[in-house]
Amino acid sequence: MDLADAYRDVRAATEALCAPLSPEDCAVQSMQDASPVKWHLAHTSWFFETLVLEGLPGYAAFDPAFRVLFNSYYQSVGEQHPRPERGVLSRPSLDRVLAYRRHVDVAVLRLLDAGAPSTALDVVELGLHHEQQHQELVLTDLKHAFSRNPLRPAYRERAPEAPGRAQPARWIVFDAGLREIGHAGQGFSFDNERPRHRVFVEAFELASRPVTNAEYLDFVRDRGYARPELWLSDGYAACGSRGWRAPLYWEERDGAWSIFTLGGMAPLRPDEPVCHVSHYEADAFARWAGARLPTEAEWECAGEAAPLAGGFVESGRLHPAPSPACERAPSSLFGDVWEWTASAYAPYPGFRPLGGSLGEYNGKFMSGQLVLRGGSCATPRGHIRPSYRNFFPPDARWQFSGIRLARDRR
Amino acid sequence: MDLADAYRDVRAATEALCAPLSPEDCAVQSMQDASPVKWHLAHTSWFFETLVLEGLPGYAAFDPAFRVLFNSYYQSVGEQHPRPERGVLSRPSLDRVLAYRRHVDVAVLRLLDAGAPSTALDVVELGLHHEQQHQELVLTDLKHAFSRNPLRPAYRERAPEAPGRAQPARWIVFDAGLREIGHAGQGFSFDNERPRHRVFVEAFELASRPVTNAEYLDFVRDRGYARPELWLSDGYAACGSRGWRAPLYWEERDGAWSIFTLGGMAPLRPDEPVCHVSHYEADAFARWAGARLPTEAEWECAGEAAPLAGGFVESGRLHPAPSPACERAPSSLFGDVWEWTASAYAPYPGFRPLGGSLGEYNGKFMSGQLVLRGGSCATPRGHIRPSYRNFFPPDARWQFSGIRLARDRR
Amino acid sequence: MDLADAYRDVRAATEALCAPLSPEDCAVQSMQDASPVKWHLAHTSWFFETLVLEGLPGYAAFDPAFRVLFNSYYQSVGEQHPRPERGVLSRPSLDRVLAYRRHVDVAVLRLLDAGAPSTALDVVELGLHHEQQHQELVLTDLKHAFSRNPLRPAYRERAPEAPGRAQPARWIVFDAGLREIGHAGQGFSFDNERPRHRVFVEAFELASRPVTNAEYLDFVRDRGYARPELWLSDGYAACGSRGWRAPLYWEERDGAWSIFTLGGMAPLRPDEPVCHVSHYEADAFARWAGARLPTEAEWECAGEAAPLAGGFVESGRLHPAPSPACERAPSSLFGDVWEWTASAYAPYPGFRPLGGSLGEYNGKFMSGQLVLRGGSCATPRGHIRPSYRNFFPPDARWQFSGIRLARDRR
Amino acid sequence: MDLADAYRDVRAATEALCAPLSPEDCAVQSMQDASPVKWHLAHTSWFFETLVLEGLPGYAAFDPAFRVLFNSYYQSVGEQHPRPERGVLSRPSLDRVLAYRRHVDVAVLRLLDAGAPSTALDVVELGLHHEQQHQELVLTDLKHAFSRNPLRPAYRERAPEAPGRAQPARWIVFDAGLREIGHAGQGFSFDNERPRHRVFVEAFELASRPVTNAEYLDFVRDRGYARPELWLSDGYAACGSRGWRAPLYWEERDGAWSIFTLGGMAPLRPDEPVCHVSHYEADAFARWAGARLPTEAEWECAGEAAPLAGGFVESGRLHPAPSPACERAPSSLFGDVWEWTASAYAPYPGFRPLGGSLGEYNGKFMSGQLVLRGGSCATPRGHIRPSYRNFFPPDARWQFSGIRLARDRR
Repeated sequence: MDLADAYRDVRAATEALCAPLSPEDCAVQSMQDASPVKWHLAHTSWFFETLVLEGLPGYAAFDPAFRVLFNSYYQSVGEQHPRPERGVLSRPSLDRVLAYRRHVDVAVLRLLDAGAPSTALDVVELGLHHEQQHQELVLTDLKHAFSRNPLRPAYRERAPEAPGRAQPARWIVFDAGLREIGHAGQGFSFDNERPRHRVFVEAFELASRPVTNAEYLDFVRDRGYARPELWLSDGYAACGSRGWRAPLYWEERDGAWSIFTLGGMAPLRPDEPVCHVSHYEADAFARWAGARLPTEAEWECAGEAAPLAGGFVESGRLHPAPSPACERAPSSLFGDVWEWTASAYAPYPGFRPLGGSLGEYNGKFMSGQLVLRGGSCATPRGHIRPSYRNFFPPDARWQFSGIRLARDRR
Repeated sequence: MDLADAYRDVRAATEALCAPLSPEDCAVQSMQDASPVKWHLAHTSWFFETLVLEGLPGYAAFDPAFRVLFNSYYQSVGEQHPRPERGVLSRPSLDRVLAYRRHVDVAVLRLLDAGAPSTALDVVELGLHHEQQHQELVLTDLKHAFSRNPLRPAYRERAPEAPGRAQPARWIVFDAGLREIGHAGQGFSFDNERPRHRVFVEAFELASRPVTNAEYLDFVRDRGYARPELWLSDGYAACGSRGWRAPLYWEERDGAWSIFTLGGMAPLRPDEPVCHVSHYEADAFARWAGARLPTEAEWECAGEAAPLAGGFVESGRLHPAPSPACERAPSSLFGDVWEWTASAYAPYPGFRPLGGSLGEYNGKFMSGQLVLRGGSCATPRGHIRPSYRNFFPPDARWQFSGIRLARDRR
Repeated sequence: MDLADAYRDVRAATEALCAPLSPEDCAVQSMQDASPVKWHLAHTSWFFETLVLEGLPGYAAFDPAFRVLFNSYYQSVGEQHPRPERGVLSRPSLDRVLAYRRHVDVAVLRLLDAGAPSTALDVVELGLHHEQQHQELVLTDLKHAFSRNPLRPAYRERAPEAPGRAQPARWIVFDAGLREIGHAGQGFSFDNERPRHRVFVEAFELASRPVTNAEYLDFVRDRGYARPELWLSDGYAACGSRGWRAPLYWEERDGAWSIFTLGGMAPLRPDEPVCHVSHYEADAFARWAGARLPTEAEWECAGEAAPLAGGFVESGRLHPAPSPACERAPSSLFGDVWEWTASAYAPYPGFRPLGGSLGEYNGKFMSGQLVLRGGSCATPRGHIRPSYRNFFPPDARWQFSGIRLARDRR
Repeated sequence: MDLADAYRDVRAATEALCAPLSPEDCAVQSMQDASPVKWHLAHTSWFFETLVLEGLPGYAAFDPAFRVLFNSYYQSVGEQHPRPERGVLSRPSLDRVLAYRRHVDVAVLRLLDAGAPSTALDVVELGLHHEQQHQELVLTDLKHAFSRNPLRPAYRERAPEAPGRAQPARWIVFDAGLREIGHAGQGFSFDNERPRHRVFVEAFELASRPVTNAEYLDFVRDRGYARPELWLSDGYAACGSRGWRAPLYWEERDGAWSIFTLGGMAPLRPDEPVCHVSHYEADAFARWAGARLPTEAEWECAGEAAPLAGGFVESGRLHPAPSPACERAPSSLFGDVWEWTASAYAPYPGFRPLGGSLGEYNGKFMSGQLVLRGGSCATPRGHIRPSYRNFFPPDARWQFSGIRLARDRR
């Protein structure tokens, strides 16, 4: 697709996500890890303004104060408004932020139309993938905010129950061998997916589908959260200090479980993939099940062979759906739920961060986080690929994060 | 005034304060001590609904969820939405909260019209004084929120500089004697102002006006914040842990001071009373000045003899004005700035809290707080009286709190 | 008594308290509020060295590093080793600290022998009262440290059960009137007890003895800790955040209560005064009992009329004993347990702190604390008097703090 | 060596380390991560008692309370005395802990003499390696405690300056290839070193020696701690929140640097390896130097080819020494300083934790930590091997942790 068309599409998609929301909804920050929707709208524009437009002849900043206000974490750009205080910003208003978007759109499209140098085109393309990442965060951050409101508001009408039933999980066998992982092709990739490189992978088996709510509920009922031998030490400590007894958004009343969704409260459906679990919970569940989490190399070996199919944001469900029956390749590797891997987020051999401020995009976060793979029901379909590396700390639960089991070849 | 008329006036005054604000402005909570404007609008209605209307034949709650959502701290009513999470509530929307107000207004006015029992009338009257307290908090909480926004929004146009000049402070002498303090008359008072009772007051002197910015600036420039011998131990520790170097809302750039006001940033005016100081700062300033803070008994002796005149919210300035020259009585005892006293907030001899849930209104907070007297530029004129006891912890700075000096009779 | 004799006695008494302890026992700091015994031994010597000996011709400091190491909070003397890190100091060893004491003793006694100026004599006398305060802290801090050790060590053999039975409490009536409180006589007093001054006291009644364990247990069994209407707001919050369900050192097993004492674990004896309660608990108990805590003025009126008799440290029990039957005056006003008053610790009218560094002794702590009266089973008999004002924050529980009820005259 | 002889040697070595210390020195806990020396003495005995002796016919526990008191983190054994409260335990006394050691020694040696089953022998052997780990911790924890004491005590006399000079660093080249890492041989290894398995390692270069103080000082002087572009995001945040400006134990006065050592304060010697740096600092230094940290696979490839020579605890220096000139293999891979790798501490493919309680030894800590390799000047020589994996969180600085640079093959 033409870059200008892609630009228009991505920008419009972001705003479409905000259409059902009031200005007040767009202003809430419910925890330090989450940001207001309005902030996402502004920051994604800041990215283009600061990293593409700034310094171009004839470009005038929309508001010089925004340079600090909507800088997320770019130290090389300058100061940042403190992250925990993003929810304090009633001004600029939502209207003014939307006007900011228009201002930036005009300038970017004019630049594309005029024939920008390839370095600028590369940053515009990066900015679109960046904005798609924030589209997912708009949904997960909003879900968190709504979940903290006792009124339990719905972002949209509850999706009808997906028709399928989850099939019993099977183990798909992968042989040992020297493989290649990482991105190599023509299309876009982030710096953290490169370079493609060799890894030796021992023989392993991967579950045919993600863990379901029914399976996870068995773990809960088997006192999984009270058995330290199943947990990493840090994970068991987190259960204690935060009172975890089930995944985020699960609620029990009189023995019946329901969950909070972007369509409001809903009964727990046994066939859906479990989601909103931390890495600690995924790891403990796997140990309880006599299995383990896959490494990201294992996952990518499977992912390269699988069709890029699954439930994405375009479906409008905004909730994971039961996995279809799988043939040869594991099903639901893409979409529905991000899958925690056992791999720490670290540089690939030969990793080179982008130059300049963009070097801060990924590399400096390679500490204390774990890789997730495959995208979720809140991910745009065009955003994901087998080599895509998402990353969160092991205690993060507000993403659509689920569990795919693996085990050593028997 | 007729109670129904008073009700209409007070309720309208609250909403008039919110007129210049957007829904986003009304939703912000910038710290745990402060609440969103929207919350104030709802909670003051909750007060009437829960303590007057609930249980009346024919009254239907506007929304049963509001009973928890807008309960501030009444344990006898039931659960409360957690105070630090008031800013998370994008729903109910501002519009819906205003509809809630209408719903409650209709029912209260119908009750008054129908001839309510005197116990109900008493609670309605209390509810109006309660709402006036929240009117002041609307302004101080909003001022705090706006101050945390680097755009430094203005709530309204900056007031023109008040004309007067502060006169040099003089000491007004009060003789020793057995006095009475506390409320005794016909009009309304809170339970914490009662009963009127005898106290013996030694001879003392009270400053003719509050401390000015110019005087406080001398303290700052004399390294007041870096001299532990001037401070209570807890106060000096607070300076260290919070980085206090001047009152809240003061900013220095290149040696020039400006302050944040509800009209935006403004130059520091030397003749205005200093405000937004903690009790610790007031106490340290007094020690530096060779004086002390008055006790609340001393203050009330002076206040009973003084005219109830000063700058109140009705003036629209929303900022303290220079004190007029005083004749016999100290000037500016009322309005402009609350005056920290040296007295811990404690029950008067013979204190009896109101019955039922209203017993939680004042008595349970008689711990860890100090009394302030006289009202401020954000206080409704009809709300204040000589026996009025306001109270805040010694580190609170976001109220319009200033300093009146006292000393033992020489 | 001669000051040199008094000096020898007090110094010896401190060391006698440490006799049953190992060097390891003397080094432990079990919480920030408590200090190691060794630190008390050193700091009380630091007091004499720094405030009396330093600068005298011919006096050489024992170790210049001690000036910082054993400075408690005297900003005017200079830096202090951080309070929470007192337990890290394995060096100087206990032996060396005892040598430090000898070094200081020689110099002080030489000074007294040579005829010191009266200003120095005053500071020596103050230093002895200061050391007596630390004698009490040696016992309470050690009790806390031992209580945190699952072995529950005993400081000494458990005292035999005191013979008496607590009589039913009666109300002793005191008439209204203008009284005087504060210290006025010839003997020693702290600056915070002065000047003697007039107060008007309304008629009140005071309980004939402190609250017993049996009475407090009734409160516990009546769900006292789970009824917010009985508590100050801060107090109820403290119960929640700290898990308070009974006084400090109480333990329940299978419905039977025992308590930790300086003689190890012991069964709860119903007739003994309750102790190790916070001000919050004392206040809640009083409200439950339909009473209140006395003000310090009320207490002092009663204390001036009562014999200075009770259980003090010299008895060696180190635990409160049942109150004897009382005649006209309330019994057990002195000794056994400190009695929480309702009065914030504040300066008396006309209060003047001592000059120089000694001005930091009391005045700067007049914030956030409440007055206790009467001394405890860990107080030296000669240390207490009717005007004596002890003070602790409302959540402090590790002192021998108990409850005396009062009420308005009916 | 015979296991009984090894047992006697290791146990004696632990006690020899404590010989210069007083009971007070042995009781201090200076931070949550560190433990008192006395605790180490007891816990290492607890290991044998609980995991070898308990349940043997005729074995009587020395003191049943020790089962909880000296349990470090074995949830399957039962409760643990809280880690941050280890310093509160003045009892049992050091003497009693030494008697505990004797009691355990007699029983273990009797068991070995009687011919124990091989499963028990395996645990005894593990217990000796466990005890050697605690020998290192005795020194590093004590160093930390002494460093917090303003008297800066010395554990022993300062070692004479090591004679050598550090040679300029060179890059040693390693070719790409499929390698094996992990332990495979006959001797002892921990479960986390197994199984030996294949990894593909890209071509890389490794520095001929660890980074020196001189080199690190250049980084400090080049404003390394104030340049966010050099740091992982978490690392730069740690610099800010903890005020890091140099390695732990470095002190600057008037431009001259000195360091705290187990021999007291000493001038910074430029040729010694830098140590007491966190992973964050090691990583930032590497980036500043245009290099990176090695992965643990890279390190192990080099380590397998290098002689197991270096400065160990047996030398008595207790401080890293300048690296000798290297020939073909990198020098100082073993001893002197632990070398941070870029690898998260994670299970090897096919990892199986030991059975029973011993399964808690290593596996449950595979989260949030990074691998260090090679041992230090506080490590017993017989304890280390090429496959040895030590692990600490990225902000840990109190170990003898240093930096070995690597880079991609050019």
